[in-house]
Amino acid sequence: MPDPSLLEVFDAPTSSPFLIEHVAEEFTSVCPRTGHPDFGEVLLRYEPAASCVELKSLKLYYQSFRNEGIFYEAVTNQIRDDLVAAMSPRWLQLITAWKGRGGIRSRIVAAHGPVPEAWVRA
Amino acid sequence: MPDPSLLEVFDAPTSSPFLIEHVAEEFTSVCPRTGHPDFGEVLLRYEPAASCVELKSLKLYYQSFRNEGIFYEAVTNQIRDDLVAAMSPRWLQLITAWKGRGGIRSRIVAAHGPVPEAWVRA
Amino acid sequence: MPDPSLLEVFDAPTSSPFLIEHVAEEFTSVCPRTGHPDFGEVLLRYEPAASCVELKSLKLYYQSFRNEGIFYEAVTNQIRDDLVAAMSPRWLQLITAWKGRGGIRSRIVAAHGPVPEAWVRA
Amino acid sequence: MPDPSLLEVFDAPTSSPFLIEHVAEEFTSVCPRTGHPDFGEVLLRYEPAASCVELKSLKLYYQSFRNEGIFYEAVTNQIRDDLVAAMSPRWLQLITAWKGRGGIRSRIVAAHGPVPEAWVRA
Amino acid sequence: MPDPSLLEVFDAPTSSPFLIEHVAEEFTSVCPRTGHPDFGEVLLRYEPAASCVELKSLKLYYQSFRNEGIFYEAVTNQIRDDLVAAMSPRWLQLITAWKGRGGIRSRIVAAHGPVPEAWVRA
Amino acid sequence: MPDPSLLEVFDAPTSSPFLIEHVAEEFTSVCPRTGHPDFGEVLLRYEPAASCVELKSLKLYYQSFRNEGIFYEAVTNQIRDDLVAAMSPRWLQLITAWKGRGGIRSRIVAAHGPVPEAWVRA
Amino acid sequence: MPDPSLLEVFDAPTSSPFLIEHVAEEFTSVCPRTGHPDFGEVLLRYEPAASCVELKSLKLYYQSFRNEGIFYEAVTNQIRDDLVAAMSPRWLQLITAWKGRGGIRSRIVAAHGPVPEAWVRA
Amino acid sequence: MPDPSLLEVFDAPTSSPFLIEHVAEEFTSVCPRTGHPDFGEVLLRYEPAASCVELKSLKLYYQSFRNEGIFYEAVTNQIRDDLVAAMSPRWLQLITAWKGRGGIRSRIVAAHGPVPEAWVRA
Amino acid sequence: MPDPSLLEVFDAPTSSPFLIEHVAEEFTSVCPRTGHPDFGEVLLRYEPAASCVELKSLKLYYQSFRNEGIFYEAVTNQIRDDLVAAMSPRWLQLITAWKGRGGIRSRIVAAHGPVPEAWVRA
Amino acid sequence: MPDPSLLEVFDAPTSSPFLIEHVAEEFTSVCPRTGHPDFGEVLLRYEPAASCVELKSLKLYYQSFRNEGIFYEAVTNQIRDDLVAAMSPRWLQLITAWKGRGGIRSRIVAAHGPVPEAWVRA
Repeated sequence: MPDPSLLEVFDAPTSSPFLIEHVAEEFTSVCPRTGHPDFGEVLLRYEPAASCVELKSLKLYYQSFRNEGIFYEAVTNQIRDDLVAAMSPRWLQLITAWKGRGGIRSRIVAAHGPVPEAWVRA
Repeated sequence: MPDPSLLEVFDAPTSSPFLIEHVAEEFTSVCPRTGHPDFGEVLLRYEPAASCVELKSLKLYYQSFRNEGIFYEAVTNQIRDDLVAAMSPRWLQLITAWKGRGGIRSRIVAAHGPVPEAWVRA
Repeated sequence: MPDPSLLEVFDAPTSSPFLIEHVAEEFTSVCPRTGHPDFGEVLLRYEPAASCVELKSLKLYYQSFRNEGIFYEAVTNQIRDDLVAAMSPRWLQLITAWKGRGGIRSRIVAAHGPVPEAWVRA
Repeated sequence: MPDPSLLEVFDAPTSSPFLIEHVAEEFTSVCPRTGHPDFGEVLLRYEPAASCVELKSLKLYYQSFRNEGIFYEAVTNQIRDDLVAAMSPRWLQLITAWKGRGGIRSRIVAAHGPVPEAWVRA
Repeated sequence: MPDPSLLEVFDAPTSSPFLIEHVAEEFTSVCPRTGHPDFGEVLLRYEPAASCVELKSLKLYYQSFRNEGIFYEAVTNQIRDDLVAAMSPRWLQLITAWKGRGGIRSRIVAAHGPVPEAWVRA
Repeated sequence: MPDPSLLEVFDAPTSSPFLIEHVAEEFTSVCPRTGHPDFGEVLLRYEPAASCVELKSLKLYYQSFRNEGIFYEAVTNQIRDDLVAAMSPRWLQLITAWKGRGGIRSRIVAAHGPVPEAWVRA
Repeated sequence: MPDPSLLEVFDAPTSSPFLIEHVAEEFTSVCPRTGHPDFGEVLLRYEPAASCVELKSLKLYYQSFRNEGIFYEAVTNQIRDDLVAAMSPRWLQLITAWKGRGGIRSRIVAAHGPVPEAWVRA
Repeated sequence: MPDPSLLEVFDAPTSSPFLIEHVAEEFTSVCPRTGHPDFGEVLLRYEPAASCVELKSLKLYYQSFRNEGIFYEAVTNQIRDDLVAAMSPRWLQLITAWKGRGGIRSRIVAAHGPVPEAWVRA
Repeated sequence: MPDPSLLEVFDAPTSSPFLIEHVAEEFTSVCPRTGHPDFGEVLLRYEPAASCVELKSLKLYYQSFRNEGIFYEAVTNQIRDDLVAAMSPRWLQLITAWKGRGGIRSRIVAAHGPVPEAWVRA
Repeated sequence: MPDPSLLEVFDAPTSSPFLIEHVAEEFTSVCPRTGHPDFGEVLLRYEPAASCVELKSLKLYYQSFRNEGIFYEAVTNQIRDDLVAAMSPRWLQLITAWKGRGGIRSRIVAAHGPVPEAWVRA
């Protein structure tokens, strides 16, 4: 079950602005309607304020969705909320891209704070 | 025959803005001039207000065009209108990309409401 | 409904051996189990004996499967049989490649006569 | 010889703004200096006012350049002018992309009216 | 837990030889050493004797490995064995291709019966 | 009109066996049925005996098909015959690959003499 | 030795604004430090005022750098300057992209006049 | 150990603004947590003021990180700082892109001075 | 320094023949002539007899070359020999593919035992 | 002028058979007919007997063709002959692939000794 307590942070190494992007290519959860697994890719992009998410803890947090029945939109908004709560970043963007189901592939884009114009697009 | 009553919606999981994109790679209708089938891809991109289109109902709605004789421009505008009517989104973009006919491939781009500059381009 | 009478042939322009390959990228039929459309690509490769299949008639023949409920394996074997009956080629290979369903994409390979080793593989 | 009278238009299916793009991948004309054929791709992008160019007539119009001795720049400007005259679009963009000659490949970009910033780039 | 009883077969539509290939792009199991999920692609290629594996049952069978702790080599050999037991094919090839772990990506190739030379290679 | 007299040859620079391949990416002729242009790529592969075809003369010979109404199969066989007559190679392979017409793209493969197994495939 | 006198211009075919782009894929000069050849691609993009550079003369001008010992930055600025002197364009952009040396590949971007925002990026 | 004294600069060949980009595809350092090597690509993009970094010295400087235990974020910020100190550029952008670890690949983007909007995005 | 004692093996899970392939994308050693690092990819392909190499131990073994001055040919032959000594496979193929140096990229192919014809080629 | 004395060899590190491949992506010579430069890629593949060609000397040898007026076929045969004379390999394959001239790109394949069937094809 999704477990935000798995998320660990570390102090940002500098106070000058910079951008961090982590792309997890092997995300999987379960469709609550059909019970079939969903597979996708999760792009996290943010500008840290005081803290950054630790990479291995991020991986374990993503793995905690493995057997959760949850819709695309809910996954995306929950990950966004959990990461914002853990890091309080200057801004954050969370984009999930899902493999095709019935010939339709989907992306969900959620954000927090002022994403710079150049980085809005996935 | 195109049947907008197939479209079902569900409540948006959050009131904070986010973007949804569904790419249907296997759209087909019929050219009303020649009777030959047309094949294309339909990109739907929108920001929900209160409701989102349900994915399986979207697929069935697209399938209802299978044997309809209809031009590229009309397909694109009708899908845009039907989805706007069903969801009343904050903005919506509908882009159809058609496989080549006689060495010419085409795209039609229709929109509703204020598409953010970063997302205007297909 | 699949209609082999649509197939027209013309005399091969030479009696010396040569190979013809037609790849139809926009084949569609219907899954008899679910009623949902299937989309695929049909590769026909053959060495003519006395006659060749005419390209436009091949296209119309393929279109006659559009609303037929038929499994992958049956489509492939039927097209192979209809083309062999129409052309009596020295050898013929028919390969269908289907877009993913539930995360699984498929190919079916049927043949008639002695396909040269170099051309067996799709 | 280039023949703009081949261009036919039809009424735009809606008065709300939308964008149409046709990419002709098989354009050919003749270099007036060397007599050798030139091969290229013609991208037409426009927002219709009251009328749209009919696709088959566009193809025939492009074919009328087949044996014309004409430079890249002149082709591009003439097609732009002929299409503007035929359709009076809100804006129009015409981009030709030519295969390499002597190790140099070229693109020519011509426009009419206010092309939206997001679509300026080829 | 892997469950071969999920596999269903149907009668081959013809007794003449043909080849079937199913590529499942979204296979996942768990590494028994680390507990981390493994992600891979499973290619099944076979020539049916009297029966073929039903596609949806194959998908459910693959899903039954989702939370199983099992090594690459064991997964590959077990799937090969279960499919051979279910279908008794003339020959069968089972290839798993795994996403990188620690900068190393792997493939395991198992076979049953005389795979034709042209199809041996993945 | 196709003009084999344009073909010039030069003496092979060595009597030891070697292979020459020329791929002309910009071949065009006219469909005799519809009058529309056909576009394709011509791959010539051969082992010279005493003489090689000169590259610029080959280009001019290909250009002589520009306004000829001729079917795919006939083009391929004629080029093969004209080149064999001009060069008397040890073996020669001529493969034409045509852009899609009505969603079907085609290749024609003609040969002369013993093409080595490794080079048979396009 | 680089020879700007090789550059020839012709009158722009129209006074309305348009854009011209020439990409030379086979540029080579010599590293003045090591004496080893450098290989790169030269992208020229400009909006003509009264005159355009003739394509074959551009090719010969680029070839005049073949045995010149000159750094990346100097090549780029010199070509920019020579072309501006020859054509007096409304604006001009010159981008060189160099193949890797010691695992590092480079690009140099020089401009003259107001390059439109949409075209600044290579 | 990272050694900024390896960086050598040379005078910019012109005082007019231009952009330089160096992409080092073979960067490696060591993860301080696990001791395993990290592999990545370093993109440096800048507009020189009075001086440019010499390419071979840049390569040696990057190599000095080979056996350093250092996190992604620290590498990126240190290279940015060292290069700014060595060159005092008008602006500079430093982007590191790291190969996947545990199924997650990362990019870090640091900047100095006013990066033009068109070049902000990697 | 290369350390074959790092290699661990485990019992093959079956005695029936199967093939294992591991591609390590991040191999690096040092050129003994120049002292500069070399970067490459190591493909290992083998059929186990009684034992298989354990994946993590293989990774650590490869890492032991990190600071070794050694030529391409010697690396390839040494890895082949060490793996053959550790596993006594039925056959084994070891292919190293090196990134470009001075515009030349290289591959070295070493083998042990009877590699099946279909798998000889990299 | 081509200078085979630049070629240096070193002793093969093992007497057991192995294969070496060097791909030089930046070969250039001059067309003796037109005086224009030719650009191509040279693939060398061989099995050493007692000696191997040293990589830097190979690069310098290739560079010695830079200003030589020489046809594709002659370049290929000369490099083959010079390398055979320098190394006396068990077998050797030399393939040159040339960028397009007038829309035609070419490859020349020369060999010495018994090239294994699996490696004949470029």
